[in-house]
Amino acid sequence: MTPEVAALRARMAELSDLHGISMLLFWDQQTMMPAAGAAARAERSATIALAIHARESDPELGALLDALEPWAAGEDPDSDDVRLVYWARRDFEKSVRVPAELTAEISKANALGQQAWQEARAANDFGRFRDALARQIELRHRYVACFDGHEHPYDALLDDFEPGLTTAELRPLFAELRDALVPIVAAAGASDHVVRNGGAFLGRFGADAQRIAVLDVLEGIGFDPDFMRLDPTVHPFAAAIAPDDIRLTTKYDEQDFAVALYCGLHEFGHGLYQARVDRSLFRTTLDDPVSLGVHESQSRLWENVIGRSRPFCAWLVPRLAARLPAALNGLDAEGLYRAVNTVQPSLIRTEADETTYNLHIILRFELELALTEGTLVVDDLPDAWDEGMQRLLGVEVTGPAEGVLQDVHWSAGHLGYFPTYTLGNLLAAQLWVRLQDDLPDVDELLERGDFGRVREWLREHVHRHGRKFPPRELVRRVTRSDLTIDPFLRYLREKLTDSGVLAPTA
Amino acid sequence: MTPEVAALRARMAELSDLHGISMLLFWDQQTMMPAAGAAARAERSATIALAIHARESDPELGALLDALEPWAAGEDPDSDDVRLVYWARRDFEKSVRVPAELTAEISKANALGQQAWQEARAANDFGRFRDALARQIELRHRYVACFDGHEHPYDALLDDFEPGLTTAELRPLFAELRDALVPIVAAAGASDHVVRNGGAFLGRFGADAQRIAVLDVLEGIGFDPDFMRLDPTVHPFAAAIAPDDIRLTTKYDEQDFAVALYCGLHEFGHGLYQARVDRSLFRTTLDDPVSLGVHESQSRLWENVIGRSRPFCAWLVPRLAARLPAALNGLDAEGLYRAVNTVQPSLIRTEADETTYNLHIILRFELELALTEGTLVVDDLPDAWDEGMQRLLGVEVTGPAEGVLQDVHWSAGHLGYFPTYTLGNLLAAQLWVRLQDDLPDVDELLERGDFGRVREWLREHVHRHGRKFPPRELVRRVTRSDLTIDPFLRYLREKLTDSGVLAPTA
Repeated sequence: MTPEVAALRARMAELSDLHGISMLLFWDQQTMMPAAGAAARAERSATIALAIHARESDPELGALLDALEPWAAGEDPDSDDVRLVYWARRDFEKSVRVPAELTAEISKANALGQQAWQEARAANDFGRFRDALARQIELRHRYVACFDGHEHPYDALLDDFEPGLTTAELRPLFAELRDALVPIVAAAGASDHVVRNGGAFLGRFGADAQRIAVLDVLEGIGFDPDFMRLDPTVHPFAAAIAPDDIRLTTKYDEQDFAVALYCGLHEFGHGLYQARVDRSLFRTTLDDPVSLGVHESQSRLWENVIGRSRPFCAWLVPRLAARLPAALNGLDAEGLYRAVNTVQPSLIRTEADETTYNLHIILRFELELALTEGTLVVDDLPDAWDEGMQRLLGVEVTGPAEGVLQDVHWSAGHLGYFPTYTLGNLLAAQLWVRLQDDLPDVDELLERGDFGRVREWLREHVHRHGRKFPPRELVRRVTRSDLTIDPFLRYLREKLTDSGVLAPTA
Repeated sequence: MTPEVAALRARMAELSDLHGISMLLFWDQQTMMPAAGAAARAERSATIALAIHARESDPELGALLDALEPWAAGEDPDSDDVRLVYWARRDFEKSVRVPAELTAEISKANALGQQAWQEARAANDFGRFRDALARQIELRHRYVACFDGHEHPYDALLDDFEPGLTTAELRPLFAELRDALVPIVAAAGASDHVVRNGGAFLGRFGADAQRIAVLDVLEGIGFDPDFMRLDPTVHPFAAAIAPDDIRLTTKYDEQDFAVALYCGLHEFGHGLYQARVDRSLFRTTLDDPVSLGVHESQSRLWENVIGRSRPFCAWLVPRLAARLPAALNGLDAEGLYRAVNTVQPSLIRTEADETTYNLHIILRFELELALTEGTLVVDDLPDAWDEGMQRLLGVEVTGPAEGVLQDVHWSAGHLGYFPTYTLGNLLAAQLWVRLQDDLPDVDELLERGDFGRVREWLREHVHRHGRKFPPRELVRRVTRSDLTIDPFLRYLREKLTDSGVLAPTA
């Protein structure tokens, strides 16, 4: 190891520690912190964020990278250290190009925006959010202007969540997906499923009993208390304090066990991704997830592709029968499989089924693009939202609280984030095709609860790389293809036909 | 506020944040962290410790203090900012005088020392700890040599835990205490109490039931879940993540409820001290505890002075009868009071009663002094220990694991720490005398569970000052006296006579 590489690794190790600490502050705040601790926590968290920013944008780091890049050009492009130089440069540029004053303005606008959004949503009044949103759009434009080399201004926003993805790629992909999904939803609409998960899991269940049942399921698929925890929270998430210290959270809705169960599966997928990175990447920051889309592919895979599959339902039913029998409502495996694979257009994204979910995302993407391009102004947003919901899902929005005000993201300045949810769905289906090639007996494995080989396949092809390979490169390496919608559409059509939602095509 | 004061406050605010974060890392490790997270946690914690050290010893901070000290000399000596300059200077000097290489050697020796100690204790073999301890003594000598102006080398060690306390003060105080306690123990020895807490609280109790009962007691005396938590751990402690975010811990011994109860009271005392600091001191580092002795006075006060008093027992009995009746073993308030105020010489400090406990401490102090002065060499330590236990407590040591190897402190380089435990006992008694002057009806208050005025008295006289006033000054302000043994001895003699352990003097 050259002295320069050693110096870079030392700097990235420190940054990795600070990121892990920042994550612990967040996890603790969401799960453990007494309520009165919030004010001090905001200060503590800001101090760590400043410490991270100072190190990421340190001019000495820039000089070190200047010295290392010519060296890296002559080395094995797949070596950890060459990739580390690449990512350190990207993080450095992201840090130094945004002036400190703009960063401070953004930080303040995010806090004020979330406050305005909460008030507006509670009052079911978009007018109270309008100015804060206009401010966010203005700041996003100024943020985009800090970077050059992007073909489309939205590219700079996307890049924060899905490094390297461009609007030029995403727009046709989502248009094609939209055009394929709308008729599927319409065809499924003929069926009369109106209750989420077909009524499975509804009832009354105490949080303690739910926790025992969820943990039992998670332990069955690979949750290991030696390096994982599960705690309740309001908005479930997974946090990696370190690859060997993974904190999952879930939520216990006392009237619907599905919330705890599918959140648990979802967060397990996120957590496993962060747990199974190669040990050689620990404390380099390459042990971070490479993008939100890849992260989401892992959570959706366990929540939906596996979690709502016929063989998984067959494995799940006796397990739940032993731990929380009332949650099954008398359903057998086949009944459960049909119940959790329904299609019903609805108003709220987070409660949407696997099919309509993506139309919620595509609507947000279309609106974000129009806001970024300036073809839509903030005042026209609520009407554009309502029109889009009618056009894409055929539902009538009853008011802004259940429409344009339902999500926190824009209030916190997160434009470019929503697409990653659907990218996760697409990529999960692409990965599953490849996994089935390698594990042709995967259905039998799932049905008998033998999840080890699925976990190992994911580790080998995805998890172990952390963010070593940029998303586009990772996807090509694993799937031998770019992002594409066909596997997801095939997966959906097959499952919805198989579960009786869609009529079999001739 | 002058720009220099503002600059100092900004630096201390950042340090305060880093200290709080460091405390969170520790608390989480002891209560929440999955076992496999230990290796990464060691790295994360070391990074924060380095960040703290870099800021505490920053030459720019030194220059700022050089500029501020002439200004401070002309200001109100009791103002927060003048005191902040004083403490920042002290922290700065402690940081810069110890060379980085020595700090690294100490850090390494502490890790190795604790490992050697664990092995030696498990093997009941002092020989396995001998070299690590000799190394610690050598490093303590080198550490002491970094400072000048101390009359006795042990002063530099004491100062880390009890700022400003000197060997010249402590030696006669502890000698006098020893000479007074030995005859009390001998006189009490005539009674035949042989079981801890006279057998109260023994039985079999699940951890969940104990937790409910302890929380109920703590809520009765002022535990508030809005800013406090209670979690189980192996070695109980209290941690202030911030004054509004206090984490207590306790331990559930399934055969002895006294452990959870008295640890809970003890840690509540520590936590309340850190919670009730003046808001104007938040994020200045003056919201830290001023010394371990003052800290311990608060825990001992709730654990012993209040917790083992007759009126508290009268309040406790019906409360426990409702929550964990079996723990009372049929004792009434008077029976409980007598049971928890016994005297029985024993081998283990942490299991000792309120009287003999201090002789355990005095033995350690005498040995530390001799090691520091060079009149005792490490090889002779086990014999000196055993001789001291015989001389002070009249007990025969059965082996090093229950003798010289019982405590972790020396293995971690903590010489000068033990005395603070007894200082806490002395100071608690001194404070209680003053509190009784101001609240002559305190016994009635305790008996009817009205703890608010006791808490408020402690806040007003001790808690709110944080570390604004050095310990000696704080003690004088509150008690109008220096540290002294008389109130503690009077308190002990009165209680032991009242509870029937000592015969009434004519």
